[in-house]
Amino acid sequence: MATPSAIIWSNNQLQLLDQRILPVQCEYLHYQDPFAVADAIRAMVVRGAPAIGITAAYGMVLAAQQITNTPASVAAWCSALAPAREALANSRPTAVNLFWALDRCDRVIEEQGNGGKLLQALTELAVQIHAEDIQINQRIGDFGASLIPADSIVYTHCNAGALATGGYGTALGVIRSAHRDAKIRGVFAGETRPWLQGARLTSWELMQDGIPVTLAIEGAAAHIMREHQPSWIIVGADRVAANGDAANKIGTYNLAIIAKHHGAKVMVAAPTSTFDANIGGPQIPIEQRPAEEITHSFGKRIAPEGVVTSNPAFDVTPAQLIDAIVTEHGIIHQPNRDKVLAHLAAAQK
Amino acid sequence: MATPSAIIWSNNQLQLLDQRILPVQCEYLHYQDPFAVADAIRAMVVRGAPAIGITAAYGMVLAAQQITNTPASVAAWCSALAPAREALANSRPTAVNLFWALDRCDRVIEEQGNGGKLLQALTELAVQIHAEDIQINQRIGDFGASLIPADSIVYTHCNAGALATGGYGTALGVIRSAHRDAKIRGVFAGETRPWLQGARLTSWELMQDGIPVTLAIEGAAAHIMREHQPSWIIVGADRVAANGDAANKIGTYNLAIIAKHHGAKVMVAAPTSTFDANIGGPQIPIEQRPAEEITHSFGKRIAPEGVVTSNPAFDVTPAQLIDAIVTEHGIIHQPNRDKVLAHLAAAQK
Repeated sequence: MATPSAIIWSNNQLQLLDQRILPVQCEYLHYQDPFAVADAIRAMVVRGAPAIGITAAYGMVLAAQQITNTPASVAAWCSALAPAREALANSRPTAVNLFWALDRCDRVIEEQGNGGKLLQALTELAVQIHAEDIQINQRIGDFGASLIPADSIVYTHCNAGALATGGYGTALGVIRSAHRDAKIRGVFAGETRPWLQGARLTSWELMQDGIPVTLAIEGAAAHIMREHQPSWIIVGADRVAANGDAANKIGTYNLAIIAKHHGAKVMVAAPTSTFDANIGGPQIPIEQRPAEEITHSFGKRIAPEGVVTSNPAFDVTPAQLIDAIVTEHGIIHQPNRDKVLAHLAAAQK
Repeated sequence: MATPSAIIWSNNQLQLLDQRILPVQCEYLHYQDPFAVADAIRAMVVRGAPAIGITAAYGMVLAAQQITNTPASVAAWCSALAPAREALANSRPTAVNLFWALDRCDRVIEEQGNGGKLLQALTELAVQIHAEDIQINQRIGDFGASLIPADSIVYTHCNAGALATGGYGTALGVIRSAHRDAKIRGVFAGETRPWLQGARLTSWELMQDGIPVTLAIEGAAAHIMREHQPSWIIVGADRVAANGDAANKIGTYNLAIIAKHHGAKVMVAAPTSTFDANIGGPQIPIEQRPAEEITHSFGKRIAPEGVVTSNPAFDVTPAQLIDAIVTEHGIIHQPNRDKVLAHLAAAQK
């Protein structure tokens, strides 16, 4: 049984697999309104940087569908679509794929906004972004797998899997390709508090593909690395800065430090749409999520009333701790600013 | 409002504060049977190495109370008490204070087992162990606080507080003394999955004493240390090996590695009853707890059915990562085998 698609576009309607209730329930929610899509991104019905980008593109299609009096110019289209675009852009701040997808929509609006075919062009773009993402992940997977030694234990965090992308996954794409190549002895998945993407999504995805996975709490990482000597820590990214610093789910920076202490290597698997050449690592905006994510569980209080919390959703792993960034165009070994910018320039050719 | 006692001995009965339901409910359970006490330790009604030791001593008192035909010899006492002793010894394997307390009971049985006053002697011993522990923690607190610079941010893990001891706490004792000395700008407490001692117990204890605490998930440790530059990571221990390696709640070894990466120092606060001079760090038995602790939350499944888990309750931080071990007899700086054994020898004088 393969992992179901996180995102389905069918009959001019968007369906999102409700990732908040996986793996206990497997249910799709239907969307025809772009503002509801923005709310769904914020509420994490859908999550994962590539999946958020795809969803935002479909959100713009829904916005265009809602406009009944076809605007006559690019400027009129832009202004008609502006409220939905803004809602989508404000849904989550860290994943740059969101802005990358909206920028691609903007270019289509500029090109097609004077004709009567904008809705069709936006639809084609969203479907293309979605389909491309799956192919991109397969390429990332194969490039990444080439770095994995035989008989490897690997360690992953959060869910950079099929559920976080158009399909196949980034970090889990690498693990899927390496498993296909018979290189994987086992995978450790961190449960990834507070939202438990590792427990709920990654272990579920890997079990469905018959890839041997062991679930552990974040606190067990150093103990497990000492005991099991993983060859690689493999994670996704929400934004890769120009110098190779990588924002990813909170806890990634922990893992990278602990990996270095135990001689394990660190791989960031991400499409070039996750790169932000205009920013340094320390400038990446880090979303703070509501305190309730850590003070409550299933609506029950698990911390004292009124406790002060810190609940950053992401952290930034400095490039110095990263051994390889893997994109659909290949591998950046020991990333730094020159290598990242050269990689992106070559990718655009 | 002060933290309530984890352990109360009253009317020849043991009362344990049920730490599984704190801080939402504050309820004492009553015990007259040593086997029920062993179950309570295993089920974590009471937890924390010093508190487990004290509880085991009271458990032996309850065992002696149950024997109606007073045995006439040391051997007869030993054999009458053996089943309860074994149940208590098997309740949890890592905290050495449990065995230290049972050994002290054994010595009292050897000394008093031929007379009619064993029950009274065992009771006096348990009450003494309990009372001593509070004074020990206050000494640990003051020694530890002497190492804390003014205006410090400190970071702690799990609950090595009043609730884990006879009172005052080991790691939280150090923080209490440092706060009394106006050295504490803030405390970060890791929530401590899977059992959430940090969320449920430590943040509660510190809030009741008016000590500023911020609760965070384990995954946020590196991000927070980069942002807030704690001077010290302060933790307790369940067993300190002869070479200074320290077993403590799973996640401590993570924190020590991450602390070193950020230039923070690592303090282990523990009474000498937590030391095991007969063992090296790698030989410390590490309890594996049931999978349900990480696959379920409040009885609800949060991971796929049948997922393989790794759920060690403790990890071992090597002495090389520890800057100071603080006991009731003083400070072992940069601990190693020679310094630890010399400290223990001096303590016994």
